[in-house]
Amino acid sequence: MLTVIPFSCITFLVASTLAISSEVFKERNHLLTQESCNLSLQLIAEIHSYQSIATRIMDTAINGDFKGRTYDELAKFVDKHINRLTGTPELEASIDYMMTKMMMDGLVNVRGEDVTVPRWIRGEEKATMVEPTVKSLRISGLGPSVGTPAEGLVGEVIVVRTWEELEEKKDLVNGKIVVYNQGWLGSYGATSQYRGNGPARAAEFGAIAALIESATPFSLDTPHTGGTNYDPSPNVTRIPGACITREDAEMLYRIYNRGDKIVINLTMLDQELAPVLSRNAFGEIQGRSFPDEIVAVSGHVDAWDVGQGAMDDAGGVLISTEALALIKHLGLVPRRTMQAILWTAEEFGLVGAQAFVNEHKADMIKYNAVFESDIGTFKPRGLDFSGHEEAGCIVQEVLKLTSAMNSTAYARYDVVGSDIFFMIQEGVPGISLNTENELYFYYHHSPADMITVLKSDELDMNTALWATVSYVLADLSVPLPRESATNEHTKIPLPH
Amino acid sequence: MLTVIPFSCITFLVASTLAISSEVFKERNHLLTQESCNLSLQLIAEIHSYQSIATRIMDTAINGDFKGRTYDELAKFVDKHINRLTGTPELEASIDYMMTKMMMDGLVNVRGEDVTVPRWIRGEEKATMVEPTVKSLRISGLGPSVGTPAEGLVGEVIVVRTWEELEEKKDLVNGKIVVYNQGWLGSYGATSQYRGNGPARAAEFGAIAALIESATPFSLDTPHTGGTNYDPSPNVTRIPGACITREDAEMLYRIYNRGDKIVINLTMLDQELAPVLSRNAFGEIQGRSFPDEIVAVSGHVDAWDVGQGAMDDAGGVLISTEALALIKHLGLVPRRTMQAILWTAEEFGLVGAQAFVNEHKADMIKYNAVFESDIGTFKPRGLDFSGHEEAGCIVQEVLKLTSAMNSTAYARYDVVGSDIFFMIQEGVPGISLNTENELYFYYHHSPADMITVLKSDELDMNTALWATVSYVLADLSVPLPRESATNEHTKIPLPH
Repeated sequence: MLTVIPFSCITFLVASTLAISSEVFKERNHLLTQESCNLSLQLIAEIHSYQSIATRIMDTAINGDFKGRTYDELAKFVDKHINRLTGTPELEASIDYMMTKMMMDGLVNVRGEDVTVPRWIRGEEKATMVEPTVKSLRISGLGPSVGTPAEGLVGEVIVVRTWEELEEKKDLVNGKIVVYNQGWLGSYGATSQYRGNGPARAAEFGAIAALIESATPFSLDTPHTGGTNYDPSPNVTRIPGACITREDAEMLYRIYNRGDKIVINLTMLDQELAPVLSRNAFGEIQGRSFPDEIVAVSGHVDAWDVGQGAMDDAGGVLISTEALALIKHLGLVPRRTMQAILWTAEEFGLVGAQAFVNEHKADMIKYNAVFESDIGTFKPRGLDFSGHEEAGCIVQEVLKLTSAMNSTAYARYDVVGSDIFFMIQEGVPGISLNTENELYFYYHHSPADMITVLKSDELDMNTALWATVSYVLADLSVPLPRESATNEHTKIPLPH
Repeated sequence: MLTVIPFSCITFLVASTLAISSEVFKERNHLLTQESCNLSLQLIAEIHSYQSIATRIMDTAINGDFKGRTYDELAKFVDKHINRLTGTPELEASIDYMMTKMMMDGLVNVRGEDVTVPRWIRGEEKATMVEPTVKSLRISGLGPSVGTPAEGLVGEVIVVRTWEELEEKKDLVNGKIVVYNQGWLGSYGATSQYRGNGPARAAEFGAIAALIESATPFSLDTPHTGGTNYDPSPNVTRIPGACITREDAEMLYRIYNRGDKIVINLTMLDQELAPVLSRNAFGEIQGRSFPDEIVAVSGHVDAWDVGQGAMDDAGGVLISTEALALIKHLGLVPRRTMQAILWTAEEFGLVGAQAFVNEHKADMIKYNAVFESDIGTFKPRGLDFSGHEEAGCIVQEVLKLTSAMNSTAYARYDVVGSDIFFMIQEGVPGISLNTENELYFYYHHSPADMITVLKSDELDMNTALWATVSYVLADLSVPLPRESATNEHTKIPLPH
C-alpha cells in the first residue's frame, strides 16, 4: 500500500521541448525539520480569535448551505466537460464554463490569460499480440507520442524489467518493439521513469516502438497514460510509446522468458499539431485593506483525455472555486485579496504555471501564499507547506482551527505541489492539500479517474479546509514571512 | 468487503433455453448445522494414520518437486489458451492440451466425452454516449445476447436503479435503451439478477437494448460480462444486452436525473450460431482395490472470452490435474480410483456437467465424492461440504491432516459448487474449495481475470489440500456415507 504521497502528480516539465522530468521534484521533495515554533503570544491569540469564523465556514460547508455543493458542482462540471486534454476546444469550453461559474458565484476580476500550449491528439490506438497466440492488449498512448504509420506497424518483441536489462540486450533491440515490465517500484517517481524515458532510451538502440507497463500498484487490466520525454536532439528518432496493463506486461515477460517469439501489431494514429492558445483562469474576492496582496487557491483544469479527470484535477479546481464562493456567500471580506487560479496544461509539463510566473515575475512578491490541490480530494488530513520556517509555524497554528475535522496534519517540505513550483521558486509560500490518497495511483491517468472515486462529504471537508485556512491567512494582520525572492534550494537543476 | 463466498460463480443454467438462474443456488445455499460428530475411535485413528502421507504430499507440493509447478503449468496453459469461450475451436484446442498433459503426467483413461454446447460469438462491441456530451462507454456483451443491426442502433436512454423503478417508468421505456444502475447489492447473487433478467424485463416494456451496471464491488472502469436469460417464449423480443462499468452507470444516472436527454449509439455484432460439440475431459489414477469407486476432483475448462479465465476457472482445472499428477509422482496408489474431471461449458449454464449426469445417471453411485474448485484458487481456508452429516464428519477429520497449512475450515451446506450440483442432487457427496477470495468479484468475468491475480505459493497450497484430502478419501477403508439417491432437499425447483 502507498502511504502519504507528498509529491506532485505531474508527469514532466516542458519549456518548449519536454526536458525536466518529475523525478526532479520527487528527488528534491525532502521533508524538512521544523524547529519548535516561537510565534508571539499576540499572534497566536489573533489566530485563535478566528475560531468562531472558522467554525462558521466549516459548518456552512459540511452541514449548511454548501453541504454537498462541491460534489454536485464537480459532477456537473466533469459530466459536461469529460475531455479536457491540453490544446483541445473542449478544454477551452470547460475553462469558459468555470469562468462563468466564478462570475455567477460573485467573484470579481474573472479573467483568462493566454498561454501557448502543445496540441497533441490521441487517434485510434490498438495493439494485438499476434504471435505466439492472439490477444488484444489495452494500450494508452503517451503524450506527445508520435503515431505509427496509418496501417500500423508489426514488430517482434523484446521484454526487459530494468534499464540494466535493456543495456544488456541492446544488441537485440534494433527493429524491435521494446516492452518494459518494470513493475510498481514502490513509488510513482521511481516507476514512472520507465514511461518518461522508456521510448527515448529504446529508440537509442533502434527500437521501433516502446510499450511500458502502467505505473500503478493495482490493476484491473487498466492502462494508465501520461507523458514521455523524447530526446530533444533532432537526429534521434521519435518512436511511438504507449502504456500497456500490468497484466499484459507480466504475460509478455512470461512468454518472452519461455523463449517464444512474440509479435505485436501496433496502431497509434496519435499526432502532434502546432501549439495553440489556452488560458490560465482567475477569479477573486477583492481584499478590503491590502487588495494588492493575494492568497491564492488553485488546481489545474486540464486533464488527460481518459476518464473524467475528476481526481486529477477537477476536484482541486472545484474545492478552490467553491472555497471562494463559500467565503463570498458568507459575506466575509478579508484584508487581502483571495484568488482562485485554474492552471492550464499541467499534464503537458506545467505549461500554464510556468508561463504565468514568466509573465508576472514582478507580481510574485504580492502573493502571500499559494495553495494547490493536485493529489486527490479524498478525506483531508491537513496541509503540506513549503517556505519560511516561521511562515510554516503560522500555517500550522491556523490549521488548528480545523481540529473539529481532524485535518490538522502538517509537514514542511522543500517543495510541495506541482503547478505552484515556479511560484515557490520565486519565494511564494506554497501549501498543498494532504488527503487519504492511498488509492490515488489506482486511478491516476486512467479511465477510472471518474467522480465515482470521490465522496461528497469528503469534498465538503476539503472545501472547508481550503476556505478556512486561505481566509484566515488572507485576513491576518501580518503577512506570511517569506524566503528571499530567488531561493537557491528550490531551483530546478538543469537536465543533463 | 465480501466475506466468504460459498456460492457458485455460475451465471445461469440452461437446458436448451436459459431458464434457471444462479439465484436458485444462492437461495438454496444454506449453511446446515452439524451435530457433534460421533465417528468411531477406530475410524478416527485410521484417518490420523495418514498424517505422514499427508505431510509428504504437502511437502512435495510446497517445498519439494512440485513447488511452483501449479503456477507454472497454469501460466503456460492460460498464456497459450487465452480464449476458451464455449463453442470455440480455441476451447477444444485447450481441452486437447489438457488431455495431453494428463497423459504426460501418467494418468490413465484419459478421454473426452462429447457434449453439445451453445455457440455464441462476440463480435465488435462499442457504445458511445452522443448526447448530452460525447463519451465512449466500455461494454461487455452478455452471452447469448443477440446483436444490434450491423450499423448499430441509436436510442434515448432511461436509467433505473431497481425493478420497482423500472415498473414505475414502464410507460417511458418503449423504443428506448434501458440502463440499470443497481449498484453492488452486497452479494453477487443479489446484484447479478439485473444482468440475468434485465434485458428480458426491459424487452417486455418495448426497450430496444439494455445496458447493465457490472456486478462487482469495485471497478477501475471495468466491464464484467456474464450470462443473461431471455424469455423462452417465441413472441417476446430478444434485445441486445451488455454490461457497462460502474462509473459509467453512475454517470448516466446523474445525467438522467438532471433531466438531460441521453442518447447512446450501440453496436454489438454478437451472434448465436448453431450448437456444436465440445467435451468433458477425464483422467485417472486407477484404484488398487475398488477401481469402480471414484473420488473426483474438478474444475471447468471453459471461460468467458475476456481476460484469461485464470481464476475462473483455469486455477480449478490446474489444481485438479496437478493434484493427481502429484499423487502419481509420489507413486501412491489409493484403494479407489482418483479422477480429474474438466467440465465444459460451465459459463453457458453448467452444460457439460448436466450432460454428464444425464448420460451417467447409473454411474453416480460409484462416486464416493466429487470436489470442485470454482470460486478462486487464492490462499486456502479449507473445504465446504454437501452431503450426509457423517460423511461431513469424515471430511472434517481428514481436513485436520492439513493443519500445517492452516486450511482446516469446514462448513456444511445444502449445496456447494457449481458444476457438481447435478451430482450432489444424485446423492454424491460434494466438496468445494474455500479460499481467501474477498477480491474474487473484482476480477470475475472481466479482462482482469488474468493469472496476475493468483500466487504461486497459494496455488501450491491448494494443490496440496486437494491432493491430500482426495487421496485419503480415495484410500480409506470405508466409503463416505451418502444421502439417498434422489435427495429431495437439493432438487432444483422448477422455474415459474
